[in-house]
Amino acid sequence: MGAHKQLKLGAMLHGISGNVGAWRHPEVPPDASVSLEFYKRQVLAAERSKFDFVFIADGLYITEQSIPHFLNRFEPITILSALAGITSRIGLVGTLSTTYSEPFTVARQFGSLDLISNGRAGWNVVTSPLAGSEKNHNNRKHPSHSERYAIADEHLGVVRGLWSSWEDDAFVHDKPSGVFFNPDKMHHLNHEGAYFKVQGPLNIARSKQGEPVIFQAGSSDSGKELAARSADAVFTAQGSLEDAKAFYKDVKERAVKYGRSPDDIVIAPGIAPIIGQTAEEAEAKYQEVASLASIDHALEHLGRFFEHHDFSQYPLDEPFPDLGELGKDSFQSTTNLIKRRAQEGGLTLRQLALELATPRTPFVGTPEHVANLIEQWYREEAADGFVIRGMLPSFYDAFIEQVVPLLQERGIFRQEYESDTLRGNLGLSIPQNRYSAAVEASVEGE
Amino acid sequence: MGAHKQLKLGAMLHGISGNVGAWRHPEVPPDASVSLEFYKRQVLAAERSKFDFVFIADGLYITEQSIPHFLNRFEPITILSALAGITSRIGLVGTLSTTYSEPFTVARQFGSLDLISNGRAGWNVVTSPLAGSEKNHNNRKHPSHSERYAIADEHLGVVRGLWSSWEDDAFVHDKPSGVFFNPDKMHHLNHEGAYFKVQGPLNIARSKQGEPVIFQAGSSDSGKELAARSADAVFTAQGSLEDAKAFYKDVKERAVKYGRSPDDIVIAPGIAPIIGQTAEEAEAKYQEVASLASIDHALEHLGRFFEHHDFSQYPLDEPFPDLGELGKDSFQSTTNLIKRRAQEGGLTLRQLALELATPRTPFVGTPEHVANLIEQWYREEAADGFVIRGMLPSFYDAFIEQVVPLLQERGIFRQEYESDTLRGNLGLSIPQNRYSAAVEASVEGE
Repeated sequence: MGAHKQLKLGAMLHGISGNVGAWRHPEVPPDASVSLEFYKRQVLAAERSKFDFVFIADGLYITEQSIPHFLNRFEPITILSALAGITSRIGLVGTLSTTYSEPFTVARQFGSLDLISNGRAGWNVVTSPLAGSEKNHNNRKHPSHSERYAIADEHLGVVRGLWSSWEDDAFVHDKPSGVFFNPDKMHHLNHEGAYFKVQGPLNIARSKQGEPVIFQAGSSDSGKELAARSADAVFTAQGSLEDAKAFYKDVKERAVKYGRSPDDIVIAPGIAPIIGQTAEEAEAKYQEVASLASIDHALEHLGRFFEHHDFSQYPLDEPFPDLGELGKDSFQSTTNLIKRRAQEGGLTLRQLALELATPRTPFVGTPEHVANLIEQWYREEAADGFVIRGMLPSFYDAFIEQVVPLLQERGIFRQEYESDTLRGNLGLSIPQNRYSAAVEASVEGE
Repeated sequence: MGAHKQLKLGAMLHGISGNVGAWRHPEVPPDASVSLEFYKRQVLAAERSKFDFVFIADGLYITEQSIPHFLNRFEPITILSALAGITSRIGLVGTLSTTYSEPFTVARQFGSLDLISNGRAGWNVVTSPLAGSEKNHNNRKHPSHSERYAIADEHLGVVRGLWSSWEDDAFVHDKPSGVFFNPDKMHHLNHEGAYFKVQGPLNIARSKQGEPVIFQAGSSDSGKELAARSADAVFTAQGSLEDAKAFYKDVKERAVKYGRSPDDIVIAPGIAPIIGQTAEEAEAKYQEVASLASIDHALEHLGRFFEHHDFSQYPLDEPFPDLGELGKDSFQSTTNLIKRRAQEGGLTLRQLALELATPRTPFVGTPEHVANLIEQWYREEAADGFVIRGMLPSFYDAFIEQVVPLLQERGIFRQEYESDTLRGNLGLSIPQNRYSAAVEASVEGE
């Protein structure tokens, strides 16, 4: 690891959305998920602490059983754009589904966010694992897991192609002659594939980071392949150091197989740090949040990952039921993880549902303990960085105030931004416009 | 007209986009269409002057012949969201096509913008008149004019239905009991129509203005019908006082036919004011901009309205060619206007192309003259307000600095905002949630 290479940090906004009960805690504004003030406060704190990016999750279908803060929340493109106007250095990453969107629209919206933020946009490419999303989108059949990834692959190719519509020197802006652009530097994509037909060109130019950073958040086999081929960064959930190391090695090796360098792809597990003055105090804080999730809501939440399966039909205190293939076509990697966890941990349905209702990561303890774990995962190649999910606003603040300075003291996290683009801070190179690249290659080949 | 009723003003950002040559003027930053600073400056000036709203136009297809600033410009949802973060009172209105979007996505993005801006969003519903848009969207056949309006009608109905997913008192946020919402106040739309099937509910609540304000910008017969049935405001192009009065009367009467009050719909023609110390100076300013449009570019621009027709095949200095039905399926009202103008004015192709390349409105002259015209159009029921398009940044500034104060002195334009929502400032009532309204109606009917 070179002296220049450092840990990357992202912050999931707003952090309380990923669990069932935290909204009930006295310190959480009940309207946090639609409070601009709440988001502003978190993004400004992250920028002061030199985080690489903030991250907005998303979903396209709700039921009465959804996590409360999923019922009413900002849409990612809009809230990221609003945050672009009030920040200057931090990256702005949001989830958008390839299954229920048009590549031309996606290319435009992220391209526009990238120009508005002057090179700080990132797109988290997801395939909409949540069954039911089709019901809000013309009852198209929800595609199978493998077909969703085939669509995602082609969709992303089209979006990236559109992002090369204009070479960097296309706009000559020559006022005396009236020549606004050089037509040789404007490119039609003329894509015709299995799922999309898009001519182009896109009506927006590249930003100073070239293209928005591509995140990928699926950890199934198809997800890892997509990431290895095309992603700049991977957001993943890993429960243990060993699992994280295996995942890290797997994805980096797949990237190399596709002719890329291991450094071309940043792997960032999500963690939910909980800080206390002692290990016991931190543990008590976790238990306090966990106690806010009722078993009924926990069962409903569990069902969401398994195509809205009704878990209330099973006895609570017996081993987790055998669900066969259920879940394979929705959140494939998550449901596999749940099944494995049930089996290896010998958990009852109640135990597993409650564990999932308030997801816990190993990063619970004193500031030193959490900093040690982060350093260990980083140095042992389990992670290039982390996405911080604050279960409560005070947990988020404690991480920023007490753990980040330790990481900075140890020299593994920056004291100042190296760059003013997201790619620059993540240590990623600027992708060349594919047409400029083609010209250079042909010149070199002469 | 009651003493309380006042003129409404909007500002089209950025104003130079609607003509062929203004980008060449020395005072125009060549990257104005993708400069956040340029947009910020204009929106903050409009807010200081108590404008009701800013307006962002859009298009989904470009060719080498497009107006320069259309080739590379911000996407409306993203730039409006960015401006939401830096403003507090002014309305934020943007164009989005019903022909090439999903109602669920549109409802979410405008709903989210409405919450982010705390009740200041507006959606300008368009049907994508521009032929070629289909080439960027899976080569779906570009629907005919009448079918586009049938789609728009259903699309808008779905979006509005989704905006009623949650009654205003749905979120009870009862932390002790763990009840986040009242399921009786959450509604599934279950829409199944000719073009869309959408179940709902939407995952975002209503804002303090109830729903985003609906603008409509088509002035064909179908456009006027859609506006009369469903729009809160109409953005239109009217070349003369007489035309504007006829249009105004027509739309208001149609609204009444649908059981609405004439005050339920705000009619706002677009104008391009040019201010001088004398009429001659103002005229010279117009001519300076007009001289920046070459006849070649003017012909290309003209072709865009007529399904990219090649006008270079006709003699320039003979009467405007007979185009038959061409244009009827694209920009129907605009092409009708062009044909009528050619006939009534006895214009040659060259004259008409150059006139369209730098569109001129009657609002050219001294500040007093322009204020008089505005007052006349307003008092004689040709307009409830205007959308200002500044051909050059200095034209925009001159209107704000020299004309707005006159309108304020005369008591026809506000000195302070009456409300902090767009609906409030436009004098529109807050639409009831359709389910709450149904309950009230049934109680009243008992």
